[in-house]
Amino acid sequence: MSIKIGIIGYGNLGRGVEIAAKAAPDMELAAVFTRRDPKSVAILSADVPVVSVDEVEQWKDRIDVMIVCGGSATDLPVQTPKYASMFNVIDSFDTHARIPEHFANVDAAAKAGEHVAVISCGWDPGMFSLMRVYANAVLPDGQDYTFWGKGVSQGHSDAIRRIPGVKNAKQYTIPVPAALEAVRSGANPALTTRQKHTRECFVVLEEGADAAWVEQKIKTMPNYFADYDTTVHFISEEELLTNHSGMAHGGFVIRSGATGVNKEHKHIIEYSLKLDSNPEFTTSVLVACARAAQRMWEEGQRGCKTILDIPPAYLSEKSGEELRAHLL
Amino acid sequence: MSIKIGIIGYGNLGRGVEIAAKAAPDMELAAVFTRRDPKSVAILSADVPVVSVDEVEQWKDRIDVMIVCGGSATDLPVQTPKYASMFNVIDSFDTHARIPEHFANVDAAAKAGEHVAVISCGWDPGMFSLMRVYANAVLPDGQDYTFWGKGVSQGHSDAIRRIPGVKNAKQYTIPVPAALEAVRSGANPALTTRQKHTRECFVVLEEGADAAWVEQKIKTMPNYFADYDTTVHFISEEELLTNHSGMAHGGFVIRSGATGVNKEHKHIIEYSLKLDSNPEFTTSVLVACARAAQRMWEEGQRGCKTILDIPPAYLSEKSGEELRAHLL
Repeated sequence: MSIKIGIIGYGNLGRGVEIAAKAAPDMELAAVFTRRDPKSVAILSADVPVVSVDEVEQWKDRIDVMIVCGGSATDLPVQTPKYASMFNVIDSFDTHARIPEHFANVDAAAKAGEHVAVISCGWDPGMFSLMRVYANAVLPDGQDYTFWGKGVSQGHSDAIRRIPGVKNAKQYTIPVPAALEAVRSGANPALTTRQKHTRECFVVLEEGADAAWVEQKIKTMPNYFADYDTTVHFISEEELLTNHSGMAHGGFVIRSGATGVNKEHKHIIEYSLKLDSNPEFTTSVLVACARAAQRMWEEGQRGCKTILDIPPAYLSEKSGEELRAHLL
Repeated sequence: MSIKIGIIGYGNLGRGVEIAAKAAPDMELAAVFTRRDPKSVAILSADVPVVSVDEVEQWKDRIDVMIVCGGSATDLPVQTPKYASMFNVIDSFDTHARIPEHFANVDAAAKAGEHVAVISCGWDPGMFSLMRVYANAVLPDGQDYTFWGKGVSQGHSDAIRRIPGVKNAKQYTIPVPAALEAVRSGANPALTTRQKHTRECFVVLEEGADAAWVEQKIKTMPNYFADYDTTVHFISEEELLTNHSGMAHGGFVIRSGATGVNKEHKHIIEYSLKLDSNPEFTTSVLVACARAAQRMWEEGQRGCKTILDIPPAYLSEKSGEELRAHLL
């Protein structure tokens, strides 16, 4: 009996969920819901209906888990609670500071609707969160470090694009190799923002724009760039599209801790991701969480969860016996 | 209300549990049980009783979770089921091939005694198992690689010590850097045993022993050394004790997978451990699992579990709210 998956929103994330759900032996993609005219949305799967999101409520009995593929800024805070009242839902809400508030809203809606919701699935929050929690539980005496990149930051790219005279831009976040090495040495360095990451910007100017002024605007932008060593390259739109339209990303979670009567033994736990496609990896996590959500719902759990509440075995399509025999 | 911890067996593991349990803010070390004369066992904690294991049953109401610190070859297959009938128990059973059988025996005993048992806690099995399961769930299309070392293999050191003419020996398992790099490149190489690890032996000879004969014996030993590139160094007992009595270990779990319509996007997930003290890191995991066992028991779960069945949040002494606010 397959888990029937629905997708709300068909951008990079929705498409990634479609690919991952179709590949899963225990899942079936039931429908894709869109705010656009369904006829205008071309999905990969010829056999899956594209439906207006206005009709979503009619699908309550035909979908086991709905994966909400909206943005964290304005979509998910509204959508996830709304759909959690009708379905088991999964989202990738990634505004770390607002997770407690989002959790509370989704929890109330999911409990009222007698559903399970799993929020903030992906890699950070998501796999990186798991690594932080495991490493902290095992090495309570220690220090956490998270590095991101090399990869495109959508928020920083957008910030550059809002500067007058900028036609297009991509911004890469890059971990500083010396900082990574210092952390791996077990020295537990106190690292400033500037010491951890550099920012590299590829910018296409509007005709007649003042490059020096734009560069100054970028490098002094508070929060986004002022606290970092930032490099700005001005390139043609053609070069931007050719060389900088990839969606690669990744990063490192490291915990450096100590054990022993006098804390004389040092231990380094390191987790890293090197991803060709940030959205497809994120959606691979979302789909695994959908499997877990269905299992938790079937055993009577209700309300909002995160990946920290999911027994790892629930994410796998393999049985407990198989996991113990082959992966334990 | 502290979790009351008991320890059965006081060697390197028992001592590691003692250190970790005493450091945990939510735990209390209740007693250490030994097969030896309790008066002959000096533990670190002056305030904790050392008790004969024959009296263990009298402690049923004074211990929440018993951590069984025996060896996997002969101790744990007998001890863990025995004590699971009296207590919630944790062990570090690490004979991968015999886990299904051990699980079944412990499960029956724990269910009969209405307790929770968590077996095979540590780093492999343990943290490495978690990484394999998560990485497989998220990247179902891919390949797993596990490398161990650099670190001392007890089994291989023992095998050398059984050769006539050998007085003492230590054997290091070392991952081959070129193999690690090939895996990290995403090439999904098929690696032979010889290509993955080398073995380096430090051997102290009995007086008059034939070094060339011993070296030949080591290098051709089936299963242990014949399939590896092995280096043998003959050193003095003093040098062995001075330079080779550490208990450092570690290793790497890597999954190399692909997503996309045509599997065109490659992803590398890598987890690594660099441990100054193999037994102290192992026992840090055991103690975190003891916390989870108590929670699972309190919510009514019974029987045998592994770390794959434990919601990650249960391993932490922090609340769900704290974890979501700070580590998610």
